Amino acid sequence: MKKVVLREDEMPTSWYNVAPDIPGGLQPPLDPETKEPIAPEKLAAVFPMGLLEQEMSQERFIKIPDEVMEVYKIWRPSPLVRAYKLEEALGTKAKIFFKNESVSPVGSHKPNSAVAQAYYNKREGVKRLTTETGAGQWGSALALATSKFGMECKVFMVRCSYDQKPYRKSLMHTFGADIVASPSPDTATGRAILEKDPNTPGSLGIAISEALEDAASHEGTNYALGSVLNHVIIHQSILGLEAKKQMEIAGAYPDVVVGCCGGGSNFAGLMAPYVPDYLEGKKIKFVGYEPASCPSMTAGKLAYDSGDVVGMTPLLYMHTLGHNFMPPGIHAGGLRYHGMAPIISALIRDDIIEPKSVHQLECFEAGVLFARTEGIIPAPETTHAIRGAIIEAMKDPNDPKTILFNFSGHGLIDMAAYDAYFNGELHDYSYPKDEIAASLADLPKIG
Amino acid sequence: MKKVVLREDEMPTSWYNVAPDIPGGLQPPLDPETKEPIAPEKLAAVFPMGLLEQEMSQERFIKIPDEVMEVYKIWRPSPLVRAYKLEEALGTKAKIFFKNESVSPVGSHKPNSAVAQAYYNKREGVKRLTTETGAGQWGSALALATSKFGMECKVFMVRCSYDQKPYRKSLMHTFGADIVASPSPDTATGRAILEKDPNTPGSLGIAISEALEDAASHEGTNYALGSVLNHVIIHQSILGLEAKKQMEIAGAYPDVVVGCCGGGSNFAGLMAPYVPDYLEGKKIKFVGYEPASCPSMTAGKLAYDSGDVVGMTPLLYMHTLGHNFMPPGIHAGGLRYHGMAPIISALIRDDIIEPKSVHQLECFEAGVLFARTEGIIPAPETTHAIRGAIIEAMKDPNDPKTILFNFSGHGLIDMAAYDAYFNGELHDYSYPKDEIAASLADLPKIG
Repeated sequence: MKKVVLREDEMPTSWYNVAPDIPGGLQPPLDPETKEPIAPEKLAAVFPMGLLEQEMSQERFIKIPDEVMEVYKIWRPSPLVRAYKLEEALGTKAKIFFKNESVSPVGSHKPNSAVAQAYYNKREGVKRLTTETGAGQWGSALALATSKFGMECKVFMVRCSYDQKPYRKSLMHTFGADIVASPSPDTATGRAILEKDPNTPGSLGIAISEALEDAASHEGTNYALGSVLNHVIIHQSILGLEAKKQMEIAGAYPDVVVGCCGGGSNFAGLMAPYVPDYLEGKKIKFVGYEPASCPSMTAGKLAYDSGDVVGMTPLLYMHTLGHNFMPPGIHAGGLRYHGMAPIISALIRDDIIEPKSVHQLECFEAGVLFARTEGIIPAPETTHAIRGAIIEAMKDPNDPKTILFNFSGHGLIDMAAYDAYFNGELHDYSYPKDEIAASLADLPKIG
Repeated sequence: MKKVVLREDEMPTSWYNVAPDIPGGLQPPLDPETKEPIAPEKLAAVFPMGLLEQEMSQERFIKIPDEVMEVYKIWRPSPLVRAYKLEEALGTKAKIFFKNESVSPVGSHKPNSAVAQAYYNKREGVKRLTTETGAGQWGSALALATSKFGMECKVFMVRCSYDQKPYRKSLMHTFGADIVASPSPDTATGRAILEKDPNTPGSLGIAISEALEDAASHEGTNYALGSVLNHVIIHQSILGLEAKKQMEIAGAYPDVVVGCCGGGSNFAGLMAPYVPDYLEGKKIKFVGYEPASCPSMTAGKLAYDSGDVVGMTPLLYMHTLGHNFMPPGIHAGGLRYHGMAPIISALIRDDIIEPKSVHQLECFEAGVLFARTEGIIPAPETTHAIRGAIIEAMKDPNDPKTILFNFSGHGLIDMAAYDAYFNGELHDYSYPKDEIAASLADLPKIG
């Protein structure tokens, strides 16, 4: 059997929320002004109650609304695939499986949360959503989701990606969304940054500030975030719940679960449904791979920090490089973020997730090997998970262990990155030690 | 039920060959020099025997080799989807289903034949394949297929597409293929054309001549064609056989089967498995939609003609605009071909297929409607099938008929076409009457 597919009626009907199963629990988000736990009504300025309830929820299972299920069914359930040819090329006895989230209409796992977020906002009368996007995957997903629910959408796209990826803009445009390069002249935040540095490549942190400002200052407009927050990770659990069921059908159980980590949602989506097994004593390892040039998990600090550059978001207790950290311009734009999801951060603290980092050249090398063996071209972000799976498989090639990783997206709309790789234009960045130290010195002071 | 998926073990294990079921039969291909039926050994210079046997076969079912099945399973079986939201937007009582062939790793149905062709060539010791590509879909598919079988691949890509679609080149390159703009300085044919007209946009007919010349003049090299020929249509039957099974599971039977037609393989792949039902008296309509600017079925002549510009291919009995016809530069590059598959042509002659034509603007309009309702952005070629399905549905919106069309590919690597559409840069071409008349006056004289 090459892959396991599920029928629609075999799809999970509830999301799984790992929050109540985190041994050390989660720290509450703080109000950036008072440094006290933030009042839900304050968050309600930009988020609908349906999502805020999930954000705070201690329920293990949350029913997926029918309207969300209907949209999921455009592409879900997604396949679970055995990477026989990759195994063969590596000469490993490991069994390597991947969950193929690239089959969504925009090529990644991102619509799993975008569709849910659009639905809950629509239900509460919101007519327009703003968001940021780095590589373009999340913006594309929200553009798709808002078009399905008849809402408007404005995307602040990090300038360097905006310039590198014209097809991403066209894609969002085709779904009816409005796209602008960030920093933009459309917000006070953007104007201030452009005045200081007209040639800035932008960052996710800046784009989040702009999207939040736009949402807060426009009637009927809310804000949507593509990763990091608890409700996003809840939505992404659909992929892990499916994968778990499919692994059972394949007669396999993972010794190691691997994913790439930017904000953390794709990896958490896959691994979280296995956490209860782990807590019951099952032998299973969870390894998250991040870029060595933006190493929030492996070189950041677990502390309260702002999710954006300006300091508009609640303070989140997370692994962070400091919200002023400007990540180098690696091609995995979706992994260029200073913080890591509080859920992932808490699971690292509790020694459940093991964080590791990889360099971009070894990742592209792994991506090309994957394309030529398994036939699918991975997104630059996804190459980090592939590299990670290969590292796990090759620790001892004679160990017949089972590895499961998340193939979070394809690279068909990011081919310029492969051109740059083949043309020898990419290089690895050295560990940005001084920049991280400077940025960490600037964390918000608590209590 | 939104869509019907099959498990791997429910996949058809044989292809279906419609040739023996064509009432009036097929005319044999002729030797371009003698104008007599061509000797198989002459074709064996560029095709393997495995494919030539299929080309001439009168067997209804041909077993799919295990090695081909293994590669198919990377993405097959593909889903059958009900377009509820499109129906709703149209306000039609028609049930519209589509076979979603966009889920392949290169985004189209083309690998169905590319994988089979690479396999049969490899089996007979061929180490390198040459081919042409228009929009880039076929070249991408052959690059994928040859990488799976460890073969070299050289793609002659029509210049206007080569310039418009940089991501297509990168994609083929990632799979290890060699790509050159056609006409190219690499062949005598290319050099001669470039000398006459250095700024020519190229055409599929020219690119075929170049790929054939390269194959004929290099040891261990064969040629692969992405459409038109009988063996290609046999391979594409996998999608129609799956769809037929899936329609049964959905409890539906098509009143109309619709597809877009360039060389004819995607439409034939879907409709051919329904031909035996039709011959047994089942009421079912087959409608093929071609671009009005390149109307081989609706304004061409059923005659023997060459498949390429130079006259290197056997003469095929087909609907043709004449091999010297230079199609206008519509964005559906995969439909810019002067001829139509002999199988499709014979089914038109026998009044089984009804040919129709549509203009590019109405197709893009349909494509955007589809993206915003069904959530998937169609390839420019595929918008012709969508437009066709809408035309069939809206003839009488109160008629609860069942329509099945082939969603042959997504547009994620062709977004420049949508940009041009949104920017108002596209226009419809008037019927190229004089060009067609001139080109038809130049058909090869037979007997």
